[in-house]
Amino acid sequence: MMSGAVQQKQDTVALPVFAAVTLALITILSVWKLKQFKYKLVNEAGVAMFYGLLLGLTVRLIWTDKGEQCPGNTTAANEQANTSNITMVNITPHGHVGNEKGQFSSHPEETFDLQVLFNLFLPPIIFHGAYTLNQKRFLANLGSVLTYAFAGTIISCMCIGACMYGFTKLMVLLSEQKEEFFLTHCLLFGAIMSATDPVSVLGLLSDLRVDLDLHMLLFGESVLNDAVAIVLTHAITTYTQMNAGLIFNPTAFLHAFVFFLIVLIGSFLLGLIFTVITALLTKFTRLHENPLLETSVFFLLSWSSYLSAEACGLSGIVAVMFCGLSQARYTVLNLSSEGRARIKQLFEVFNFLGEISIFGYMGYILLKFTCHKFEPYFISGALLSVFISRAFNIYPLSFLLNLGRTNKIPCKFQHFMMFAGLRGAVAFRLAVKVTAKEVSHTIFTTTLLMIVFTIWVLGTAADPMLRRLDIRVGVDPDENQEDRIFEIATERLDTTQGLWHSLDYKYLKPMLTHCGPPLTESLPQCCGVFARVFSSPRVQEDDEEEELCEIEAGKNTLDLGETESQQGSSESDSASEHQEDLLDGDLGLGTAPAQPREASGSSTQL
Amino acid sequence: MMSGAVQQKQDTVALPVFAAVTLALITILSVWKLKQFKYKLVNEAGVAMFYGLLLGLTVRLIWTDKGEQCPGNTTAANEQANTSNITMVNITPHGHVGNEKGQFSSHPEETFDLQVLFNLFLPPIIFHGAYTLNQKRFLANLGSVLTYAFAGTIISCMCIGACMYGFTKLMVLLSEQKEEFFLTHCLLFGAIMSATDPVSVLGLLSDLRVDLDLHMLLFGESVLNDAVAIVLTHAITTYTQMNAGLIFNPTAFLHAFVFFLIVLIGSFLLGLIFTVITALLTKFTRLHENPLLETSVFFLLSWSSYLSAEACGLSGIVAVMFCGLSQARYTVLNLSSEGRARIKQLFEVFNFLGEISIFGYMGYILLKFTCHKFEPYFISGALLSVFISRAFNIYPLSFLLNLGRTNKIPCKFQHFMMFAGLRGAVAFRLAVKVTAKEVSHTIFTTTLLMIVFTIWVLGTAADPMLRRLDIRVGVDPDENQEDRIFEIATERLDTTQGLWHSLDYKYLKPMLTHCGPPLTESLPQCCGVFARVFSSPRVQEDDEEEELCEIEAGKNTLDLGETESQQGSSESDSASEHQEDLLDGDLGLGTAPAQPREASGSSTQL
Repeated sequence: MMSGAVQQKQDTVALPVFAAVTLALITILSVWKLKQFKYKLVNEAGVAMFYGLLLGLTVRLIWTDKGEQCPGNTTAANEQANTSNITMVNITPHGHVGNEKGQFSSHPEETFDLQVLFNLFLPPIIFHGAYTLNQKRFLANLGSVLTYAFAGTIISCMCIGACMYGFTKLMVLLSEQKEEFFLTHCLLFGAIMSATDPVSVLGLLSDLRVDLDLHMLLFGESVLNDAVAIVLTHAITTYTQMNAGLIFNPTAFLHAFVFFLIVLIGSFLLGLIFTVITALLTKFTRLHENPLLETSVFFLLSWSSYLSAEACGLSGIVAVMFCGLSQARYTVLNLSSEGRARIKQLFEVFNFLGEISIFGYMGYILLKFTCHKFEPYFISGALLSVFISRAFNIYPLSFLLNLGRTNKIPCKFQHFMMFAGLRGAVAFRLAVKVTAKEVSHTIFTTTLLMIVFTIWVLGTAADPMLRRLDIRVGVDPDENQEDRIFEIATERLDTTQGLWHSLDYKYLKPMLTHCGPPLTESLPQCCGVFARVFSSPRVQEDDEEEELCEIEAGKNTLDLGETESQQGSSESDSASEHQEDLLDGDLGLGTAPAQPREASGSSTQL
Repeated sequence: MMSGAVQQKQDTVALPVFAAVTLALITILSVWKLKQFKYKLVNEAGVAMFYGLLLGLTVRLIWTDKGEQCPGNTTAANEQANTSNITMVNITPHGHVGNEKGQFSSHPEETFDLQVLFNLFLPPIIFHGAYTLNQKRFLANLGSVLTYAFAGTIISCMCIGACMYGFTKLMVLLSEQKEEFFLTHCLLFGAIMSATDPVSVLGLLSDLRVDLDLHMLLFGESVLNDAVAIVLTHAITTYTQMNAGLIFNPTAFLHAFVFFLIVLIGSFLLGLIFTVITALLTKFTRLHENPLLETSVFFLLSWSSYLSAEACGLSGIVAVMFCGLSQARYTVLNLSSEGRARIKQLFEVFNFLGEISIFGYMGYILLKFTCHKFEPYFISGALLSVFISRAFNIYPLSFLLNLGRTNKIPCKFQHFMMFAGLRGAVAFRLAVKVTAKEVSHTIFTTTLLMIVFTIWVLGTAADPMLRRLDIRVGVDPDENQEDRIFEIATERLDTTQGLWHSLDYKYLKPMLTHCGPPLTESLPQCCGVFARVFSSPRVQEDDEEEELCEIEAGKNTLDLGETESQQGSSESDSASEHQEDLLDGDLGLGTAPAQPREASGSSTQL
């Protein structure tokens, strides 16, 4: 009689999200409790991973009887066909099984998925890292950072590729191997494993508060090598598709190089564009009168830099890093003090929860995923080659860099950098994103195992290692400040200032903020209209604002003592944290004069 | 030669999320600009919906040539089969088409989907609404709120169902109708349309800052009727599955009633459980020493109340509302002042962005969804019956309530409540979740149109309507304070205090916070162990804390002047906002003595 039966759909998202939230809560509380008991060895990433493993195991045990068999010949192409059609990447056996049956029997647990996780949480983590960076130190080490990130990653990729090729040949010799590994597969694995992870490295560095130079080198390298790894994997793909084989093909190589430049410059520009939008918006409107709106707009625009870069196939991580750096340099000057505090706190919460979520998910998928392929030779080869490649990367490059740097990279730093090659979210994302046909599962499994190994073993051993190497830990912000005062005193603020400083101080700052000399003065006559349009609408009569700009310009450094004071209360607070002026010096290679520690000067320069 | 081709998966999430973020940004900026120009009529929900419509239109125009045809006989059951298997509810034609072809050709735009949106953004919106509620006023109006929410929603459902049944008969008579509408379908539509929307109502009320009693009535009704609507839809489903037909079936009715009690009490308990966990955690640990951890734990636990309720099939909205109310009453007293400010700001941002996202998405799906079924009779019938049912709901109930209330609900309030029956996210969610086989698309389309109509027309007309009815708007917090001082003065704080107050003051507060009399005194001897375990570990020697408890207990009301002062700065700030003590009085039906406006007393009672 009642043909129109009424049905109710179940909410399939609530349960997995609830599981994830519970996991995060347990992780937070256990790490916090363990730290209280002075177990310095634990880190959030490792603990989150551990609980993720437990959850994965539980889910697997509960759902194991639902006819889950791993199809032997599921190829990556097949998997790709699925994943691009269903709403999210579905790296589970159910995806495969489903595909063969013509339907997807995915568990609700897989809904809160990888891509959402990365798009939601990676940007705030990287942004937070860049936003709270000591900019001066970063720029001083920029040359070295770029060398490690670019040359180092390429060396690492080649080295791992070569090692793995040897190992796969050995596997074939010992005839335990049915799968065929080509050199491109090995190089692909090399590219995936070359990307050290900014998330775990940031967690480690901020926990231990190591020496600032070491912090800059490790953080900068881990962020920037994402772009290199993306380019390398893409280059290998292009190279393979061109059927170039093992013969060197200049056209394919040129393609790869052009693509590399596009990715890097494109990502950089996207990051910058969103900063310019935010800065102009906050400069020319009264957005600062409403801190909630200000925070929302700032947050959304910064997030957009990552999303737009990823949507274009560029490196979102690189884009959001440049965005964070430039937001901290320009936009922050236009914000209200409350807005500034809110933004910092918002990103802090996202950063904290994001790290836990990403590593928890990785642990979960390691045990949840039933189609793992454990190739003992491949895994042991990977383990060995990761260390070999890291050594080939750090030591020779450090030697070369030290030839040019006045402020040498000490041996103990090199040892620690060699040691701190943690792999994490970026490698995982690459392993999921880029899969070669036959060997995808072997690569995926090995990558996950390498991540677990580096996070647990290397991450835990980092603190004892630092003590052993006698590297300063627990560096407090006051020390920076000391550095700054003396550096301002010793730096030459005359005509030898670099091109960058002039561009920054004369053009960018007046255009994007209320600080610096008026554009009408710095720009040539012909740009009169442009200068008038972008000139600050308010004259610098506002005391508070002038103070901000002054602090920012390196004056008035004496009242920076309360950097760690309660946020939201003082104007100078945020300014002192973010707005350490770039005083030219050595743009990377350490060509500035060595800075004597005992030097000290008056703090009222300029 | 190279059989191992390497492929790269595209990120399918970044682009749609980027589109959503851009939409949110444009909405924020346009609403803000329009408000600056004193266009009081615009509201965020309406503007977000407008831009969502534009985006939906654009997407539809761009992808229209990709062979999208809407299968005529796609039934809801069919749709359900799809949606429960793919990762997310996929209310688009592609889902259907894909189903017939055995694959899903969903556009990336649909990935950032409905369920994620609701699970992510609804909880903070409702929580924020409850957390910042004037608790005393809410409890004073609780009886009326419950009457409107429960009796009102049932009346409304029956009324709409009856009206629609008549209209569908008319449709059949005029023989333009091929689909068959049963009474259950009409009642189902009635249940969906009976749920007034807390998100849009909250946005409206906080924008206009109407009279506090009116605020309580409208907000309370819109939040609590979610539970009723869920129960009604479930009851209709159960009733239908029992094949009870049109004959009254006592068993089915009993089933529905039991289910109703389970949903309501279960949701209430879940909300309370998470508050108890949070309160005990913040009371007995040193979590307050780390505001970041405190904020994260508080946020995750509050969110859990919604997620766990939804996962159990209960009403997440009701659970998170009770959680918000009780967190504001107990847990907030254990937090550090910085943690309190951070939590408020975090929820504020989520609330703000969530409202925009949800309404933007609704607009988007209205034009993006290609399988709409516009039935002119059904739509006009719905339009009429919504008003009729609202009138049948508000006026008779208000009349009955006024018989019991000393503080009558004035006629102008009744007119405005009749008028302010905005439909929104809850109705939308129900329409997606619960779909009857034949008529799902008609119901879905009509629901969306009714939402657009009520948001745009009624939402825009709310401000002029309030002026017309001469209802106070722009109520400022100082007025509350005045109220409070005089109420504290006139309230009887002696033995006539109600059961609730004694439970709250003597047991709950000492157990969950550091305030109130020690449990060892209030509990009987036999519970000695329990009392000692839950007694506050710190004696109230801490000045700050004592002050907090005092404020909270209704004393010390003179220094509440700076309620709107900068947050994070003063202890008393948050306390004054959230911790207005429940001074028994009338628990809902207004049995307390009429409160003479001119009354004024000393503020140092108790």
